Amino acid sequence: MKQSQLFTKTRKEAPTDEVSKNAQLLIRAGYIHKHMAGVYEFLPLGLRVMHKISHIVREEMNAIGGQELKMTVLQDPEIWKKSGRWDDAVVDNWFKTKLSNGQEIGVGLTHEEPLAKVLTQYVHSYRDLPIYPYQIQVKFRNEARAKSGIMRGREFLMKDMYSFSQTEEDHHAFYEASKKAYMKVYARVGLGDITFETFASGGIFSKYSHEFQTLADVGEDTVYLDRSKKLAINKEVFNDEVLLELGVKKEDFEEVRAVEVGNIFSLGTKYAEAAELTFETESGDKKYPIMGSYGIGIGRLMGVIVEVLSDDKGIVWPESVAPFRVHLISIGENEKAEELYKKLTDKGIEVLFDDRDVRPGEKFADSDLLGIPHRVVVSKRSLENGGVEYKKRTDSEGVVISVEDMVQRLL
Amino acid sequence: MKQSQLFTKTRKEAPTDEVSKNAQLLIRAGYIHKHMAGVYEFLPLGLRVMHKISHIVREEMNAIGGQELKMTVLQDPEIWKKSGRWDDAVVDNWFKTKLSNGQEIGVGLTHEEPLAKVLTQYVHSYRDLPIYPYQIQVKFRNEARAKSGIMRGREFLMKDMYSFSQTEEDHHAFYEASKKAYMKVYARVGLGDITFETFASGGIFSKYSHEFQTLADVGEDTVYLDRSKKLAINKEVFNDEVLLELGVKKEDFEEVRAVEVGNIFSLGTKYAEAAELTFETESGDKKYPIMGSYGIGIGRLMGVIVEVLSDDKGIVWPESVAPFRVHLISIGENEKAEELYKKLTDKGIEVLFDDRDVRPGEKFADSDLLGIPHRVVVSKRSLENGGVEYKKRTDSEGVVISVEDMVQRLL
Repeated sequence: MKQSQLFTKTRKEAPTDEVSKNAQLLIRAGYIHKHMAGVYEFLPLGLRVMHKISHIVREEMNAIGGQELKMTVLQDPEIWKKSGRWDDAVVDNWFKTKLSNGQEIGVGLTHEEPLAKVLTQYVHSYRDLPIYPYQIQVKFRNEARAKSGIMRGREFLMKDMYSFSQTEEDHHAFYEASKKAYMKVYARVGLGDITFETFASGGIFSKYSHEFQTLADVGEDTVYLDRSKKLAINKEVFNDEVLLELGVKKEDFEEVRAVEVGNIFSLGTKYAEAAELTFETESGDKKYPIMGSYGIGIGRLMGVIVEVLSDDKGIVWPESVAPFRVHLISIGENEKAEELYKKLTDKGIEVLFDDRDVRPGEKFADSDLLGIPHRVVVSKRSLENGGVEYKKRTDSEGVVISVEDMVQRLL
Repeated sequence: MKQSQLFTKTRKEAPTDEVSKNAQLLIRAGYIHKHMAGVYEFLPLGLRVMHKISHIVREEMNAIGGQELKMTVLQDPEIWKKSGRWDDAVVDNWFKTKLSNGQEIGVGLTHEEPLAKVLTQYVHSYRDLPIYPYQIQVKFRNEARAKSGIMRGREFLMKDMYSFSQTEEDHHAFYEASKKAYMKVYARVGLGDITFETFASGGIFSKYSHEFQTLADVGEDTVYLDRSKKLAINKEVFNDEVLLELGVKKEDFEEVRAVEVGNIFSLGTKYAEAAELTFETESGDKKYPIMGSYGIGIGRLMGVIVEVLSDDKGIVWPESVAPFRVHLISIGENEKAEELYKKLTDKGIEVLFDDRDVRPGEKFADSDLLGIPHRVVVSKRSLENGGVEYKKRTDSEGVVISVEDMVQRLL
């Protein structure tokens, strides 16, 4: 894409009420716009990143048998009343609204109940299980404070998967498979080395749940980490009982700040019971399937990538999620640069081509702020030296190389 | 995909309160599930169709210079109060909700106001125009009655594009380009021959708007159509003044029922004024950009395709939007069929493979209901006759041909 045609521009300052680093950088670079606290528009560059993260998550969920669907935002209270999660005294962050006939309805914050209800149409026998439906969908939570940029929004894009299994054994096998899939997601988006499977409290359905925590000073969670074992325990369950159960020693753990980038829960049969979702076993008994839920906040993941990988000049995108792979910058050589733009895009390489009529210093500063992984500069000087100046976003200095060498590095 | 793994199944009956043909068929075939009136879950097959229609729309919007973004569902009232569209007495189908601090906010039904506000950050000079942002996003309208299935929902997926131009001339040129792009969309989704650009009333900003109307008995609109000129006029403006203005004769038009599958509006400067969105002209004056809006309901389009193309056996998808291209059916020959499944998917052909252990008659009936364009049956009989039985969904009889011939027909 030609940068002269991109309608967003970089900004010197983010809104003064924006305290989070991720939102400050993303707003300054033109990836997002703040609509109100915890609610952000995703502008073209930002949407491209969201699509790339979504695509990675989708591939990994499909790989473990996930079937993508799309639940509704508007929620009929009936099924939520049955499960006991409609009352604001129980779930305090519902957005609720009304149909024109006055009936109160909800704005979806999670989907265990309605999904279990959908499945009453399709699950009757043990032969119909297991199933793993998931969605990548906008969700809404009425957070009292929303000061973490896109890491904790009132409106946010989330991947939520749910498992329905016949037996505890089957449930456990999928639960473990989901952990591996989650770690693949974090590795692919560039957070693999600093993201850890973490023991956390389990709520009423099971003793423990598992979180995936990424090391970050800005994190809301305190986590105890054994780096050598790549094992982490959330502060809330870091006690003698758990240490004993896991067979680990307190002194091997260090206290770190981290941000939760995913969580998985065993849900037991509570929501199946509320929806009257049953199946007939091989021996003819009626049983409730065992459910699990598996969440990754797509927007949150994008925010965390910005928080932990950016430097003092701006954003640093991993290649896998960058809005473009190459930032091609023309310094007074638009004709030569345009040839190169065509050459690269013809090879299927995604290029943002800075063809704007602005000072070189501004172009370089913008390029650092935008954080595209590969920078290629075409200038009089580079052409005289036989090529283009090539620099990775993470390199401090560029090198002049031939166009052929540069293309080779990108293929 | 193997059908034994797909969690949805066909159903004999749709819910008794479902009166629309599109929803009845889509529910029976397992594409959608009814959550409540006008609110539907999109199950795996249905979501695949939605993704395909979205992809076609996206390509055509990108081709005329569109830049995709994602606006927010939650809406701060401020900008809507300025434009005069917050009050329920003016706009009667808002869903409204409240932040935890009690502040009333909206649930998005359209996005002229907030988009104009976003652009105040980026549009300052005539050099920044024109721009054509668009989104494919879930929208909400509090319809009193919702009886048309996915053709008119309370929650629905929509493509809405907005144009911002310097001059009336530029605006007009893009408005005309959008008409061509829209007709390309309808042609690509299989409705080209029965969809007509239609004069309609323009509201307060311009004398006329344009709708795109697809001939359908179930349509809510009455339209006058000159088939030879491929010109239609909505009943609401089918009067002597308009006939004179268009230079056409009343007697060339026939009255038909049609359903609106898109509309485009000139908006003037009203929303730019409300958002204080201005730009400096080449001569240094301050002006408001001229806006247009361009909508296509993605869900509605899917519903219309079902309404107008289905037959008494079920849905008939055009290839471009079908969830799979090929429905491969094994009649007691799962091993041979599996080979073929691998062969086709290796060539990038999307196949739904009916490997289920059910009666042939049930498989054929399901196949007709699902509406996948190409049916390939592998049976003892077909193998004895040298291949597979191949039939298009629209053919009445299949033919036995060799596997090579069949693959050739699909490439």
